[in-house]
Amino acid sequence: MSGSTNKKIVGVLGATGSVGQRFILLLSNHPDFDLKVLGASPRSAGKKYIDAANWKQTDLLPSNAADIVVVECKPEHFADCDVVFSGLDADYAGSIEQDFINNGLNIVSNAKNHRRLPDVPLVVPIVNPDHLDILKNRKATQGKKKGFIVCISNCSTAGLVAPLKPLVEKFGPLDILTTTTLQAISGAGFSPGVPGIDILDNIVPYIGGEEDKIEWETKKILCPLNANKNEFDLLTNDELKVSAQCNRVPVSDGHTECVALRFKDRKNVPSVEQVKNCLKEYVCDAYKLGCHSAPKQTIHVLEQNDRPQPRLDRNRDNGYGVSVGRVREDPVLDFKMVILSHNTIIGAAGSGVLIAEILKAKGLI
Amino acid sequence: MSGSTNKKIVGVLGATGSVGQRFILLLSNHPDFDLKVLGASPRSAGKKYIDAANWKQTDLLPSNAADIVVVECKPEHFADCDVVFSGLDADYAGSIEQDFINNGLNIVSNAKNHRRLPDVPLVVPIVNPDHLDILKNRKATQGKKKGFIVCISNCSTAGLVAPLKPLVEKFGPLDILTTTTLQAISGAGFSPGVPGIDILDNIVPYIGGEEDKIEWETKKILCPLNANKNEFDLLTNDELKVSAQCNRVPVSDGHTECVALRFKDRKNVPSVEQVKNCLKEYVCDAYKLGCHSAPKQTIHVLEQNDRPQPRLDRNRDNGYGVSVGRVREDPVLDFKMVILSHNTIIGAAGSGVLIAEILKAKGLI
Amino acid sequence: MSGSTNKKIVGVLGATGSVGQRFILLLSNHPDFDLKVLGASPRSAGKKYIDAANWKQTDLLPSNAADIVVVECKPEHFADCDVVFSGLDADYAGSIEQDFINNGLNIVSNAKNHRRLPDVPLVVPIVNPDHLDILKNRKATQGKKKGFIVCISNCSTAGLVAPLKPLVEKFGPLDILTTTTLQAISGAGFSPGVPGIDILDNIVPYIGGEEDKIEWETKKILCPLNANKNEFDLLTNDELKVSAQCNRVPVSDGHTECVALRFKDRKNVPSVEQVKNCLKEYVCDAYKLGCHSAPKQTIHVLEQNDRPQPRLDRNRDNGYGVSVGRVREDPVLDFKMVILSHNTIIGAAGSGVLIAEILKAKGLI
Amino acid sequence: MSGSTNKKIVGVLGATGSVGQRFILLLSNHPDFDLKVLGASPRSAGKKYIDAANWKQTDLLPSNAADIVVVECKPEHFADCDVVFSGLDADYAGSIEQDFINNGLNIVSNAKNHRRLPDVPLVVPIVNPDHLDILKNRKATQGKKKGFIVCISNCSTAGLVAPLKPLVEKFGPLDILTTTTLQAISGAGFSPGVPGIDILDNIVPYIGGEEDKIEWETKKILCPLNANKNEFDLLTNDELKVSAQCNRVPVSDGHTECVALRFKDRKNVPSVEQVKNCLKEYVCDAYKLGCHSAPKQTIHVLEQNDRPQPRLDRNRDNGYGVSVGRVREDPVLDFKMVILSHNTIIGAAGSGVLIAEILKAKGLI
Repeated sequence: MSGSTNKKIVGVLGATGSVGQRFILLLSNHPDFDLKVLGASPRSAGKKYIDAANWKQTDLLPSNAADIVVVECKPEHFADCDVVFSGLDADYAGSIEQDFINNGLNIVSNAKNHRRLPDVPLVVPIVNPDHLDILKNRKATQGKKKGFIVCISNCSTAGLVAPLKPLVEKFGPLDILTTTTLQAISGAGFSPGVPGIDILDNIVPYIGGEEDKIEWETKKILCPLNANKNEFDLLTNDELKVSAQCNRVPVSDGHTECVALRFKDRKNVPSVEQVKNCLKEYVCDAYKLGCHSAPKQTIHVLEQNDRPQPRLDRNRDNGYGVSVGRVREDPVLDFKMVILSHNTIIGAAGSGVLIAEILKAKGLI
Repeated sequence: MSGSTNKKIVGVLGATGSVGQRFILLLSNHPDFDLKVLGASPRSAGKKYIDAANWKQTDLLPSNAADIVVVECKPEHFADCDVVFSGLDADYAGSIEQDFINNGLNIVSNAKNHRRLPDVPLVVPIVNPDHLDILKNRKATQGKKKGFIVCISNCSTAGLVAPLKPLVEKFGPLDILTTTTLQAISGAGFSPGVPGIDILDNIVPYIGGEEDKIEWETKKILCPLNANKNEFDLLTNDELKVSAQCNRVPVSDGHTECVALRFKDRKNVPSVEQVKNCLKEYVCDAYKLGCHSAPKQTIHVLEQNDRPQPRLDRNRDNGYGVSVGRVREDPVLDFKMVILSHNTIIGAAGSGVLIAEILKAKGLI
Repeated sequence: MSGSTNKKIVGVLGATGSVGQRFILLLSNHPDFDLKVLGASPRSAGKKYIDAANWKQTDLLPSNAADIVVVECKPEHFADCDVVFSGLDADYAGSIEQDFINNGLNIVSNAKNHRRLPDVPLVVPIVNPDHLDILKNRKATQGKKKGFIVCISNCSTAGLVAPLKPLVEKFGPLDILTTTTLQAISGAGFSPGVPGIDILDNIVPYIGGEEDKIEWETKKILCPLNANKNEFDLLTNDELKVSAQCNRVPVSDGHTECVALRFKDRKNVPSVEQVKNCLKEYVCDAYKLGCHSAPKQTIHVLEQNDRPQPRLDRNRDNGYGVSVGRVREDPVLDFKMVILSHNTIIGAAGSGVLIAEILKAKGLI
Repeated sequence: MSGSTNKKIVGVLGATGSVGQRFILLLSNHPDFDLKVLGASPRSAGKKYIDAANWKQTDLLPSNAADIVVVECKPEHFADCDVVFSGLDADYAGSIEQDFINNGLNIVSNAKNHRRLPDVPLVVPIVNPDHLDILKNRKATQGKKKGFIVCISNCSTAGLVAPLKPLVEKFGPLDILTTTTLQAISGAGFSPGVPGIDILDNIVPYIGGEEDKIEWETKKILCPLNANKNEFDLLTNDELKVSAQCNRVPVSDGHTECVALRFKDRKNVPSVEQVKNCLKEYVCDAYKLGCHSAPKQTIHVLEQNDRPQPRLDRNRDNGYGVSVGRVREDPVLDFKMVILSHNTIIGAAGSGVLIAEILKAKGLI
């Protein structure tokens, strides 16, 4: 597997956690990346990964990762890495990631800590990989030693914006967007994550911080660069109103969202058929760039009344494809639809890996 | 139990089905009603109820019902009944119920068939029992032999309109209402109802006819009488826009709804605190009338972020109370909130029994 | 509620935990007991109970408990208590309970710590309340200041032994007993208890220490006193072989057990009908003593092939009754059957309350 | 895909049902088989498969199957098939399959109807493919026109016998075997299969006919041929006692079984380590024959206390591998262990496909 001169050396921070485990799975036998370094807490450092991690994935622990000796999350251990994937908890991610950047390392992070900085790309790789181009400007103006960070969006935001992108490109901006989410429990990790007694025969109509993340991140992911091309200009509330209601439901993987939206241009509102065709025809840039993990079909438009369903549809295009069903007119806004995305793939670690593939394809790493 | 001269004689149509079983439980040892007649399909007729029914309730089959010999759903068998509760499937309810009415019997029905007739009250007993007053006008103008029918609303509509009633009474009409429902599987009955493989680790983002029911029935339940006081004047789309998105979720009992709403009067929009206080202070008319099953607290306003939850909150006031949580401002409309109601009690059979209690209290039976 | 001169003053240790919350519910409006003291960790002490506890029961927090100011788990705060219920975690129960005993207080404990002491009764109140009589001997030989402790059995053991007791009384001892359990998650508490991701669409075929508890505790609960009537003589492996296999399953409340057993006397093995009749006819001593919570029907024998089921049958006799179904011959041992019991009632706090009722009825408190 | 002269032509009976859908998935892009004919009820016949089937798999409907026009289950439509896979319901399988055999067609059937005939192999392909050799004898003595049938075992039996085979081969026969199963709902199909309300927050301790199947089929799968090598000699109850208790649990895929067993030879009972090593070292004949679907690791022995778990372990070797955990001594018999197998792969359609691969490798088709 190693030896290929084209492969980039990569590492994972927070390697024993649920996001870290997913990174390891997705980076196993990857044509672009060679996983060399696994970082975790001091408690795990010094142990072989197989002994340090409580492996809880449905796939077996890849043998190449099993014997890697875990290190602490310090930049010196990752000095050879072209890119470092961070699955750190928000409690630790802020300072550790900043330390890595300061030491010239490039980070793709699942943590929320740096998402709102105006010069940090917040990227859903099937939506706004063009936001990564800001890194060129940024790198040009900075010393050689400083690395960069790219943030993966919040999981429920990723699925939401996927079908919005082609719609906005084709029919112009939205001015109102509402979503009620039915989110899987895997998004909460597993130590302990959502307690079983809270989610069996039950719904929890609240996820801390989640509604605010959706309402905020959507406005960044869909926004343009500023005039100097070095920062992002968040959409204002006047430009786009977003309202989210978030629920945790008894589903293992796959976030379902009931969405309604309105286009700003009241004179050229498309038809249901135009909306569906636009979604079907969308080919994401990552696929055009030939990225390994990019979905062949970015948006799967389902015609059956009772789809998408998480158990049946979450694995489209290995979890990188997003499913949309029940596109129909809305008595209040323009359209209603149901969106399903795989929260640990396109909503977390999988996005990170595809972002890194794009960075490589664009020559940014 | 019998012998009381005040008790009304009652019967149940569709007694072996899931709604029928609930009627039997709720009518057991009831202070107002004496359950005498159980009607079901010809296949069950002639058997003792205990042998005819596949009893699937968490409470034991009441002993007084066990030995009743089931009859066919024909008016002659119910001639002594002051009121007949119908748990019939929509496939049969239309003609059977009409036949009963024509024979002078009074029906309280859970079926959808007669809900949209302009002279039929569609009643959520903690919301619009005043709609029953139309029966006085109706009875006065008709021959003695003709009975009446009162329809129980659709289950997800019942929970939705409960908190709307006091808000509209106090702050004036709404002009926009949206709801995304997370509905329990008990609402689909049990022969077979929702297949297990469809609902385990899954969401079904569709319930046939449900969205239309919510969007239509809300406009009738909240509407006034016409000028002649003998028909209901449905609210128009111009007066109230309603948009519903309905999901089936892995919950046994209890419908959760994520609701947003806007008041028509843009100059006097209440505050969050005013909304919560209005809900807390609401005392439904059924309680004021002293009805046996009426909730002492109609609306339970919960202050914890993560409530209401179906497993914990569905049984408030024996399932006749409705819980409301997370009342907060909405970036798009005025307010967002989460509503939880017990779909088989206030959303179905329980409503039927309370409606009959109100009919008795008002002297309509 | 207070003021009754007959009521015993009681307290709860570990009051904020899941077992403690159940004790509070069951002691609310109890005819025999007046709940006065609630003990918890130093972190909770000094707060009103309503502020200290994260109340997670399906019934509302009883108003009489809500305003009690929580104290630390120190004997001086419980000096007025006739009996103290302990819902403490095993990590703390050992020393705290011993401290209470040393200070003359009487404990009924759900913790495992003292269960295996030869002079401590391990009691399932519908099975072996006669074991409490040892306290008379014990008290006579000890100084006035020393209190006693009675241990509640492990939850899955409680359900298992309930039908064994009448069988052994009538048909003589068993020599082989096997059980495979399907245990509800509420038994693991809720901070965090069983993680949701471990139990959704899943089985965990292991519960730490549980198999050993069943195999050991069964031999104590069914055992006789020693010759001096002051200690218990555990059954030996030669007398009774017990084999348990324990699983955690996606059920909220109610432990199901698939049991097989063999009688020692190979010449007088009863028939299936005799076994079922014996179970049906059993009336537990607690009921004969007139105890408030004692089940009217101790064992519910179900004849339907597919019963008992936890969701439908766990609440028989308010959770104090045990259901047995599918009694049939076994190709290997004598009989197979399925036993269902409510793990938080007869398997935990409920047993504690009923034990205390028996103690009161027997004049031991 | 077609065109390969080595590929065998195959068809599927009962193609629209849940087993039929699995056959189609597993036969898609198969190196040995070319799926040409799909048979279903007269209601479906004449339609394209994509229109006839309510496709409910987590993988998309293979495009090569989508456009096949469904035919009725009559031999003439399958005349070109080298082997026909039957996913028919037992209500129809008996006569249709016999009709096919009589017309010279070879059947691999998942139905129970022919399993107990003394000259029909009942095969778990990772266990007793040698039983297929009887077909040579049988074919030799019969006219050219008569086909044969091979039966796939019951799903819970398949997982159970997988680890027994190497144990019996190495340590001699068992004389006692007990299993308590926790079976997934996918085994019950989906029209309607297990109702959701029966399985949410619930266990059903009964599966019609299942215990008898396990107790009977185990004795055939582990039995030798008769002296004439043309029939199977079922093990007697004196040779092997089997006792099964079967439960339906809220798991989508994957049967868990809690097993205990005793070896006949009481003087040479192996150690726990010997048992585990025997299981680890087992290589099934299908793998040695180079069959495409044969598991590389037939039995996965897990050392973690809390494994195997269905959600995590059911997909080992694409569902053709069986997981065994918690191997330990049993106080009653010799050993206890937990076995997990994928009920729709090694327990149903997957076994059928692997059996056909073996038939091809052995030159029997």
